[in-house]
Amino acid sequence: MKTVVIHTAKDLRIEDREAGSPGPGEVQVALASGGICGSDLHYYNHGGFGAVRLREPMILGHEVSGHVTALGQGVSGLAVGDLVAVSPSRPCGQCTYCQKGLHNHCENMRFYGSAMPFPHIQGAFREILTANAMQCVKADGLTPGEAAMAEPLSVCLHATRRAGEMLGKRVLVTGSGPIGTLCVLAARSAGAAEIVVTDLSDEALAFASRVGADRVINTGRDGEELSAYAAGKGYFDVLYECSGAAVALAGAIPALRPRSVIMQLGLGGDMTLPVQAMTAKELDLRGSFRFHEEFPMAVRLMQAGMIDVKPLISHTMTLDDAVAAFDLASDRSRAMKVQLAFG
Amino acid sequence: MKTVVIHTAKDLRIEDREAGSPGPGEVQVALASGGICGSDLHYYNHGGFGAVRLREPMILGHEVSGHVTALGQGVSGLAVGDLVAVSPSRPCGQCTYCQKGLHNHCENMRFYGSAMPFPHIQGAFREILTANAMQCVKADGLTPGEAAMAEPLSVCLHATRRAGEMLGKRVLVTGSGPIGTLCVLAARSAGAAEIVVTDLSDEALAFASRVGADRVINTGRDGEELSAYAAGKGYFDVLYECSGAAVALAGAIPALRPRSVIMQLGLGGDMTLPVQAMTAKELDLRGSFRFHEEFPMAVRLMQAGMIDVKPLISHTMTLDDAVAAFDLASDRSRAMKVQLAFG
Amino acid sequence: MKTVVIHTAKDLRIEDREAGSPGPGEVQVALASGGICGSDLHYYNHGGFGAVRLREPMILGHEVSGHVTALGQGVSGLAVGDLVAVSPSRPCGQCTYCQKGLHNHCENMRFYGSAMPFPHIQGAFREILTANAMQCVKADGLTPGEAAMAEPLSVCLHATRRAGEMLGKRVLVTGSGPIGTLCVLAARSAGAAEIVVTDLSDEALAFASRVGADRVINTGRDGEELSAYAAGKGYFDVLYECSGAAVALAGAIPALRPRSVIMQLGLGGDMTLPVQAMTAKELDLRGSFRFHEEFPMAVRLMQAGMIDVKPLISHTMTLDDAVAAFDLASDRSRAMKVQLAFG
Amino acid sequence: MKTVVIHTAKDLRIEDREAGSPGPGEVQVALASGGICGSDLHYYNHGGFGAVRLREPMILGHEVSGHVTALGQGVSGLAVGDLVAVSPSRPCGQCTYCQKGLHNHCENMRFYGSAMPFPHIQGAFREILTANAMQCVKADGLTPGEAAMAEPLSVCLHATRRAGEMLGKRVLVTGSGPIGTLCVLAARSAGAAEIVVTDLSDEALAFASRVGADRVINTGRDGEELSAYAAGKGYFDVLYECSGAAVALAGAIPALRPRSVIMQLGLGGDMTLPVQAMTAKELDLRGSFRFHEEFPMAVRLMQAGMIDVKPLISHTMTLDDAVAAFDLASDRSRAMKVQLAFG
Repeated sequence: MKTVVIHTAKDLRIEDREAGSPGPGEVQVALASGGICGSDLHYYNHGGFGAVRLREPMILGHEVSGHVTALGQGVSGLAVGDLVAVSPSRPCGQCTYCQKGLHNHCENMRFYGSAMPFPHIQGAFREILTANAMQCVKADGLTPGEAAMAEPLSVCLHATRRAGEMLGKRVLVTGSGPIGTLCVLAARSAGAAEIVVTDLSDEALAFASRVGADRVINTGRDGEELSAYAAGKGYFDVLYECSGAAVALAGAIPALRPRSVIMQLGLGGDMTLPVQAMTAKELDLRGSFRFHEEFPMAVRLMQAGMIDVKPLISHTMTLDDAVAAFDLASDRSRAMKVQLAFG
Repeated sequence: MKTVVIHTAKDLRIEDREAGSPGPGEVQVALASGGICGSDLHYYNHGGFGAVRLREPMILGHEVSGHVTALGQGVSGLAVGDLVAVSPSRPCGQCTYCQKGLHNHCENMRFYGSAMPFPHIQGAFREILTANAMQCVKADGLTPGEAAMAEPLSVCLHATRRAGEMLGKRVLVTGSGPIGTLCVLAARSAGAAEIVVTDLSDEALAFASRVGADRVINTGRDGEELSAYAAGKGYFDVLYECSGAAVALAGAIPALRPRSVIMQLGLGGDMTLPVQAMTAKELDLRGSFRFHEEFPMAVRLMQAGMIDVKPLISHTMTLDDAVAAFDLASDRSRAMKVQLAFG
Repeated sequence: MKTVVIHTAKDLRIEDREAGSPGPGEVQVALASGGICGSDLHYYNHGGFGAVRLREPMILGHEVSGHVTALGQGVSGLAVGDLVAVSPSRPCGQCTYCQKGLHNHCENMRFYGSAMPFPHIQGAFREILTANAMQCVKADGLTPGEAAMAEPLSVCLHATRRAGEMLGKRVLVTGSGPIGTLCVLAARSAGAAEIVVTDLSDEALAFASRVGADRVINTGRDGEELSAYAAGKGYFDVLYECSGAAVALAGAIPALRPRSVIMQLGLGGDMTLPVQAMTAKELDLRGSFRFHEEFPMAVRLMQAGMIDVKPLISHTMTLDDAVAAFDLASDRSRAMKVQLAFG
Repeated sequence: MKTVVIHTAKDLRIEDREAGSPGPGEVQVALASGGICGSDLHYYNHGGFGAVRLREPMILGHEVSGHVTALGQGVSGLAVGDLVAVSPSRPCGQCTYCQKGLHNHCENMRFYGSAMPFPHIQGAFREILTANAMQCVKADGLTPGEAAMAEPLSVCLHATRRAGEMLGKRVLVTGSGPIGTLCVLAARSAGAAEIVVTDLSDEALAFASRVGADRVINTGRDGEELSAYAAGKGYFDVLYECSGAAVALAGAIPALRPRSVIMQLGLGGDMTLPVQAMTAKELDLRGSFRFHEEFPMAVRLMQAGMIDVKPLISHTMTLDDAVAAFDLASDRSRAMKVQLAFG
């Protein structure tokens, strides 16, 4: 079968690997759709990020869906032909954190397409994927592309649940990439009454508007517009920080009301922050990392029509065009979410 | 001006009263719409409920909207002609509970149309209403009927906020009257993934379906359908109890998962409950009473198109037909929300 | 080895059973102390409670401690001779609820000395107990009697954690049996500023005073004293209901402030409650059932000197006097916690 | 009367001012004790901190107690001669934040001895203080020095309440000054099972040990000791950051478990933080600023014997020795809390 393998920065290849067969409790899936994520792009463009570096070739990809082609022994609730969203998250279920229900902090996590730990965890961009049945969520009623969006949507639903009360709240989102725009959808589905999004790219902001942001601000050009929200003690109740840029986070602080919650999703290494001002306002900066229960929830909310991710899927390309797809996805002025169509 | 006055059970009269003029911080409103609430019907049909009894004539009504006709000194943010939803809740702002932000527990609450305390708090069904500016929320973009729904919707938003996490949850609603059906809308706006409603009236349940319930069950006829959800340790995460009937609450317990939250909105006096079973499941029975911050939130969520109450307004009648309107509203097989049109 | 076996109500026997040897991951413990719990007394006096009835002989007991005598393969962190508190709770770790961290709601729970399910789960009153290593918590520095109190103390710590904020709060405890008095200790350790306990027995209340209750009220004799707390909208922030009596719970409602939390620990079947008054005050009635993480916490808090349970151990009797011990424990006017000394 | 006035850095004078008389709702207090706080020292040593700078002479002081000498009209619940702790916090009670119960974020706050806003809010180091009755909490049973500790203790109780669950938790405190050591006491009173404190001064750490820290680490000398807690995914559940030093906060991150809570009390301007690592662990960095409800709570917990602040009062000096007292308080190797004795 064909797989999408990153060797070093800018060296992405379509390679043949042998497809396995499903063991007990496993499911064989013919992949249909695979979305390119920011971390895939980091491997592709830079060979990694921070301390996480490629040390051997690795199959990329962790936003995938497909159709069931075979069931291992003891699998129930799924049938050959089912469209499934496949979660890339494979916690052990046994460690201290799994037993607390904090599976995203599993001490033995095996998450598709991660160069940490070593040997790397191979990813899911492959024509045939053998997964545990519990990774597979039936996605009937969705397109394969929507089903593949379950993964990044889960990230945003996880952040939304961790943010606490959302009904009727005023929300600011800094960074209008795929995660930022999905946060708009997630926040709205949880009842946010007003959502403003900032970014430096008009093209990216256009997607935020398309999925329902009440207002978008290009802070590179219209810096004053955000500062208008800083009157008094601030305006917003919740901030989703999706840029990973300290300047975006620091710039948003004056616009937040005392006791606001900042959900930090962007990964940007060390950041210099106005901690004194944050303390005086009793702000609450909460990291949000991956997801667990939110994966089936993501599928369900799309099926129920409560969240529509289709406007964010900007391009769909064939597996053989993977390199072009990665280049396109790297260009924020042209693409939002680029997906590969398999088979 | 004309007012709607209850004297004793079944003795409802249209009476002339003098309209006041707005003092400092007050607003004069020409009433446009007034919804008939369950407590109005208790006064009309029974002269009160529980220990709350009529002892003198009282103007009824607390779900109202209208147009601003005059502004008292020092009022800003409102203009003559504005459509406003008027909150019937008038906490003192000074007592221990107000200073904790728990205004619905104000020690000196003056809530329109309440026979408790004595002398009764006169209600809002009057052609000209003089209210504090802070009771008035601009409702442009809504119809007067929708604006008058802000009050019962606030009750349901308050319960929803108190229920805690709602995103992706499975919700059961017992009792499909105006409060139950508004809870369907409130729960959905906060992200409930699946909503099932029970009642004894098919007509009432039809309204729940109309506003988006995923399934309705007539427990009088199809008792087995609810018990199917009791498999294992139960199915639902949240119950909105809107019937006030112990049998409805007790009947729902087996269908609730351990750690579920029960929001109690129905007012039904003493109830005999399976406390041992509730304790073993660690259920959480939370009373929900009126609202405070949720009133402007209700207006905002309707304006944003996130909640559409129009399907629940089953009848609109003139002020002169008030008696007929009260009779109609008392008949669950014919009416959901009946509103009076003023002026 | 000797075991304490209940056959039917009032038919308690000391019987010989064969002691097993520890398999992989297991520990053999020579029992030192075993506390008699209210549920043991229900089996002894009535053959069960509610729908839970004896159908075959069952070894009683689930509040136990002892010394390690042998280690199965692969056990680390324990050594022969260690005093350990042994948790009677044996969740599966695999089911939906365990994977959420809600082990006390395990679908496959095996809790020592429970007639539900059938065949009954045999208990821990036996000279030699073979347990999983993860049930055993090192208790050095404690007496065996204290270590055996880890179990009921865990119940009260679990309720205290579920109660939420306790620091500086005013607490009412209804029912001054072993659970009620341990709730006094648990609430104080979490920062309760004022604790009042009610009961019908002066002897029971004396124990509450001994462990630090600020005030005790015999509601059978001094009913007026509790009602003094009902002035205004009430006084207490938290109620631990440990009596299982509807009259105790209902009688406490007026003394609770709006938004108070009621932790329900007492098991009393159906209860008729003033739900309307509870709703108007927005009270929060939360069931609390068993424990999980709180078991090692209980040992730790006793070791740190933060909780001293010794004043509650009213009697220690030999295994051969088990019948007399059960009779004594059944008499609230004479005993608080009665423990059996093994070996 | 004598007052303690700061003119510019290092220019502290004892000056005569006229004492007022109590108006309606006010109380006249003959000051007994006044503790010197870190912010007083900032004005004394540097003329301010960050953007907060002295622009005119200002009476210092906000940790005070005294005896009631006269009551204004309408004051009840206090009598001449009462020892009272006086809260320096004077929120308006009317603004948006006060009406939410967030009085520490009052838009019109007048907090004793603050150079922000301008004109400065004069402080409480004066022989005769006229305060609102609601600022005064009866402190019978305490010494004046203890009563004056109610203020900094309130800061730590506020942080403890905001930290959420504390019972049985493992706590790290970075910075062993007056706030850090009071956090040890506050955390213990709320049930912390294990408390470790770090600082660069052995003298400061000795105070932490004296009030019950389980372990102290001089991170300047014994850096390895803290890193031992970083094994696996970390050890501590809660961090009180009381140093205001980015290096202390950043150095503690590896020792924190996923989902830990960091209470930020130290005020240190901008800080460069390992946000990526904090996000991956889903840490929660919460600012904590001043207090409101915690002031009477602090008095109550000291009266109940649950918190003993006396070991932290290292020096008591006379008003006439104020300059020497400020110099002593500025020397961490000699002093913990220095208090002035008035009258």
